[in-house]
Amino acid sequence: MSHPKRNARSDRDNFIRLADDVELGEGVRLFSFVNAYGCRIGSHTQVGAFVEIQRGAVIGERCKIQSHTFICEGVTIEDGCFIGHGVMFINDRHPRAVNPDGSLQARNDWRCEPTHVRRGASIGSGAVILCGVTIGEGALVGAGAVVTRDVPAGKTVAGVPARERAQRILSGAV
Amino acid sequence: MSHPKRNARSDRDNFIRLADDVELGEGVRLFSFVNAYGCRIGSHTQVGAFVEIQRGAVIGERCKIQSHTFICEGVTIEDGCFIGHGVMFINDRHPRAVNPDGSLQARNDWRCEPTHVRRGASIGSGAVILCGVTIGEGALVGAGAVVTRDVPAGKTVAGVPARERAQRILSGAV
Amino acid sequence: MSHPKRNARSDRDNFIRLADDVELGEGVRLFSFVNAYGCRIGSHTQVGAFVEIQRGAVIGERCKIQSHTFICEGVTIEDGCFIGHGVMFINDRHPRAVNPDGSLQARNDWRCEPTHVRRGASIGSGAVILCGVTIGEGALVGAGAVVTRDVPAGKTVAGVPARERAQRILSGAV
Repeated sequence: MSHPKRNARSDRDNFIRLADDVELGEGVRLFSFVNAYGCRIGSHTQVGAFVEIQRGAVIGERCKIQSHTFICEGVTIEDGCFIGHGVMFINDRHPRAVNPDGSLQARNDWRCEPTHVRRGASIGSGAVILCGVTIGEGALVGAGAVVTRDVPAGKTVAGVPARERAQRILSGAV
Repeated sequence: MSHPKRNARSDRDNFIRLADDVELGEGVRLFSFVNAYGCRIGSHTQVGAFVEIQRGAVIGERCKIQSHTFICEGVTIEDGCFIGHGVMFINDRHPRAVNPDGSLQARNDWRCEPTHVRRGASIGSGAVILCGVTIGEGALVGAGAVVTRDVPAGKTVAGVPARERAQRILSGAV
Repeated sequence: MSHPKRNARSDRDNFIRLADDVELGEGVRLFSFVNAYGCRIGSHTQVGAFVEIQRGAVIGERCKIQSHTFICEGVTIEDGCFIGHGVMFINDRHPRAVNPDGSLQARNDWRCEPTHVRRGASIGSGAVILCGVTIGEGALVGAGAVVTRDVPAGKTVAGVPARERAQRILSGAV
């Protein structure tokens, strides 16, 4: 058994594992049970429990990243975004564990597709965000939605797959 | 970087963070990796790994709260309920990280809408429960459902959005 | 309050709780915040953060089990499978917290239905896998899908409930 080789500060009382290469702005609040490495988190952003933020992810200022959410390499979240609980970002369109020769895939064996969440957007809890999409400025993604294509600025989407909805049901998830 | 100011007992061997203001009934079982604060958990209820229970949540007796589930402020779960794995409750219909002036939202900047899960109800894994709904006594929510409105007592719902289904497919998720 | 009685090695720096009865192959990599007991994990498999693997689960060699995923009793995952982030497996078709007499259900009060994931299959992030199904060799389950029946070998499914899709949208989640 082995562990990934990282220089990390482990906070045993708050159950936080923060790699030395994480760049934190001023006044960032990390709640308990956070795992972060190689990422940037802007000033005054809050990160909830049971959140993982991977190498290469960039999160802006004054965001709320809620519990149980996974933010992967390739994801850029601009300032003032709300990312709900249990939101899953994706960066690999064709995920496989192994190569055709049976060897375990390494970082060079797959292509990372970027995802952008523009300023002030909100993503509801339990949403799944496919890779290669842009969620526009101030847009709203309903809870439980599966986003498979771009969301225009200021629009509301919901459902599986996510489609545009009238503003009044913005959080209605459907 | 800062942490939320809470008086909490950290159990470093079981990776549990239990705030001093949690009210626990008799014989409550907390599995590993639990984060709970300001809530009430009734007697003989079990709470699985990677669960967060927020301030103001109330959970009855003899419930099973399974792993990876998030229970927020405003949620009341009565006795004998089964809450599956990865279930996300919601309490804010219009979530935003920041106010119109750009400042980070604080607790008084949004309205908490309550959710009730009545006695003996079961919620399947991966379900998302929108706020302001009541899940009736003995009702069943299928796995992966997104519940956007009340579920009558004894009924089964499934799908996105969740709609009533025949009893025989009660766990069929669709 | 009580904790489950298990002999376990707690790794306080990596936040890992590994019961003594876990069988690990060679070169298994466990990331941080893992809870595993009574399971078998094959050689060179990787297990991400915030993953729980329960008693009786069997995972093959060279698999990738990504963060926030729950693998329960009754689940068998063969070699070379990719299990995305936030994937929920299920083993109880009729989950209830309590018996008709009001007592908390124990292990003998419900029936575990097995699930098989065959060699080389990939399951997208946020998918929910109902119990009693087989996901065939090399099959692909789209992100956010709810799988309610068998997936034939080599096929791609997506949506809620999951249905067969053309190969080209294999990761398109819908």
